[in-house]
Amino acid sequence: MSSDFLTLALPSVQELSPYVPGKPVEELAREFGLKESDIVKLASNENPLAPSSKVTAAITEALPDLTRYPDGSGFALKEKLAHRFNLETEQITLGNGSNDILELVARAWLAPGRNAIFSEYSFAVYPIATLASGAECRQVPAKNYGHDLEAMAAAIDDNTRVIFIANPNNPTGTWFDQAALNAFLRKVPNNVLVVLDEAYIEYAEQSDLPDGMDFLSRYSNLLVSRTFSKAYGLAALRVGYAVSSKEIAEVLNRVRQPFNVNSLAFVAACAALDDQEYLERSRTMNNQGMQQLEEGFKRLGLSWIPSRGNFIAVDFQRDASPINQELLQKGVIVRPVAGYGMPTFLRVSIGTQAENQRFLDALTEVLKQD
Amino acid sequence: MSSDFLTLALPSVQELSPYVPGKPVEELAREFGLKESDIVKLASNENPLAPSSKVTAAITEALPDLTRYPDGSGFALKEKLAHRFNLETEQITLGNGSNDILELVARAWLAPGRNAIFSEYSFAVYPIATLASGAECRQVPAKNYGHDLEAMAAAIDDNTRVIFIANPNNPTGTWFDQAALNAFLRKVPNNVLVVLDEAYIEYAEQSDLPDGMDFLSRYSNLLVSRTFSKAYGLAALRVGYAVSSKEIAEVLNRVRQPFNVNSLAFVAACAALDDQEYLERSRTMNNQGMQQLEEGFKRLGLSWIPSRGNFIAVDFQRDASPINQELLQKGVIVRPVAGYGMPTFLRVSIGTQAENQRFLDALTEVLKQD
Repeated sequence: MSSDFLTLALPSVQELSPYVPGKPVEELAREFGLKESDIVKLASNENPLAPSSKVTAAITEALPDLTRYPDGSGFALKEKLAHRFNLETEQITLGNGSNDILELVARAWLAPGRNAIFSEYSFAVYPIATLASGAECRQVPAKNYGHDLEAMAAAIDDNTRVIFIANPNNPTGTWFDQAALNAFLRKVPNNVLVVLDEAYIEYAEQSDLPDGMDFLSRYSNLLVSRTFSKAYGLAALRVGYAVSSKEIAEVLNRVRQPFNVNSLAFVAACAALDDQEYLERSRTMNNQGMQQLEEGFKRLGLSWIPSRGNFIAVDFQRDASPINQELLQKGVIVRPVAGYGMPTFLRVSIGTQAENQRFLDALTEVLKQD
Repeated sequence: MSSDFLTLALPSVQELSPYVPGKPVEELAREFGLKESDIVKLASNENPLAPSSKVTAAITEALPDLTRYPDGSGFALKEKLAHRFNLETEQITLGNGSNDILELVARAWLAPGRNAIFSEYSFAVYPIATLASGAECRQVPAKNYGHDLEAMAAAIDDNTRVIFIANPNNPTGTWFDQAALNAFLRKVPNNVLVVLDEAYIEYAEQSDLPDGMDFLSRYSNLLVSRTFSKAYGLAALRVGYAVSSKEIAEVLNRVRQPFNVNSLAFVAACAALDDQEYLERSRTMNNQGMQQLEEGFKRLGLSWIPSRGNFIAVDFQRDASPINQELLQKGVIVRPVAGYGMPTFLRVSIGTQAENQRFLDALTEVLKQD
């Protein structure tokens, strides 16, 4: 028998291509000989604010316990989430980022012979997690770059176990309203798990986006996934969570690694939940930055997809990769989305006012040169 | 079709029982109405020293970057490990603790119809990861509580993909020498992956235990798994790593979550690698504590399994669970190992001199009362 460990791996693993994250600042600095401090990164939908001082204080206080294992049950964070969102702790599953939540779902309910449904132009981890489990990917064509929820419901068959939907959606920023979500959930059979990915929902508060948690009592097959990586500003620490029926949470907790979330991540997430003022500042900065970018695009005669996330996809109506290359040379990192089937777009995360301006200035220069 | 999400889960998930970690101090305090500061926890093989000041300084310095994603490639830590152990960075896979490494192995190479071999009285995560993948567990009877490497090699068949061995072994502390490892590796076919779990190896340095990394050039089917959770004192932060052929590492890196290790964990592990003095103090304290416990057991007329880890399994030659209960009431947490098939033993982690004494005093009282 072969001793080629790729051939010996499971067929699903052999076909897997890893997720490609945004280019790190250090890497661009090495590649183009730039100073790290001169580089603006608007590529990974990170929060441009400095971290919450409540968070950094909580981490500092926890440092003497670094030699001890985390509390595998996540008792304190679950209590705090339950209190904030009026849940029972048994409805919560904690993840090493919401990426972990998506993978736990795939590992619990997907396998060869089963399928998962998701939309065209949606988060790369849905197909990666589905393929890794050996299940079939059913990608449903988008409508105006957003989810076609009716077509997604129509794509369900007897082997469908999971549907991934995102509101707002990444990388497009598109969204659906309460009536659309409700109509969709009514159509999905109750043995198909609906994963509603709300990684960016905190940016959309007080808009026409529904709060997924409001639907949990009516739909026992609904799981709402959220993260501390975006509006709470904790991307470095990898904390996500799922809210669902207790039964679904119990299955996910079987599959989860016992210490998937680490101790400093726990105390940081608890402190972040207590800092609503930070969340408010994140939203305000995002709203202002979104307006700044839209106005800049308008001046440059560019079109974009209206977004409710902390990012915006701008359309150059021609191959965007040379534009991306020139931006990189000027020390501006944004995200190409050709891998998502959007080769004429670049996805730009909303930064501080100065970062947004730096990007717009660089873009103006690049477009002038053409 | 049923809407019972446990029944809808994969059969392997339905049969899974989660790993049971050591009882957290907070939980015992709640349960018995004890003060946390009065409780001694010698249950999770944690490092009893305070964290390295180099580590805490590195974490403090990294706090301004909490809003940014970790470097998914782990560039800096891999460079440092490669330099320390004379490896190429492509041989290294980073894990969210070595638990993550063990699971990645199972997800890459195990599935229904395949099997994994491990010893009786070995780490609980080997059967958990194997069962979660749907593969068959082949547990080989131990010899004097240690691995029977000859019997393990003889248990290999055409469907064997992975063998887990640990040196020293947890929860028994037993070990094998260089000649035994070499003889074993010579017998294993080169299409069967040997996972050599060296979570505790730093405690055994300058003893007759082989260094697994010395065998990598001769055996392309060998993977050495290590952790920062024990002698490096970073259990809270979850950093483990595997060293193997580049080919094996490439497969593991496909299966790994893109941000499985977080930013503070990265900087902490880099700083820990630079603090060899801390490692030396960990070893010294462990050697002294081991001697202290052995002498205490001798005085109490108890027998134990000689150990090269940072823990020791003591044998009461009768059901140890009442003794464990009485120790808990006195605020001393050790680890019952009935779940490992060792109902007459308790596993005690080596603590500081004062913690060890506290445990011995409590044990003396408990045994007097009988």
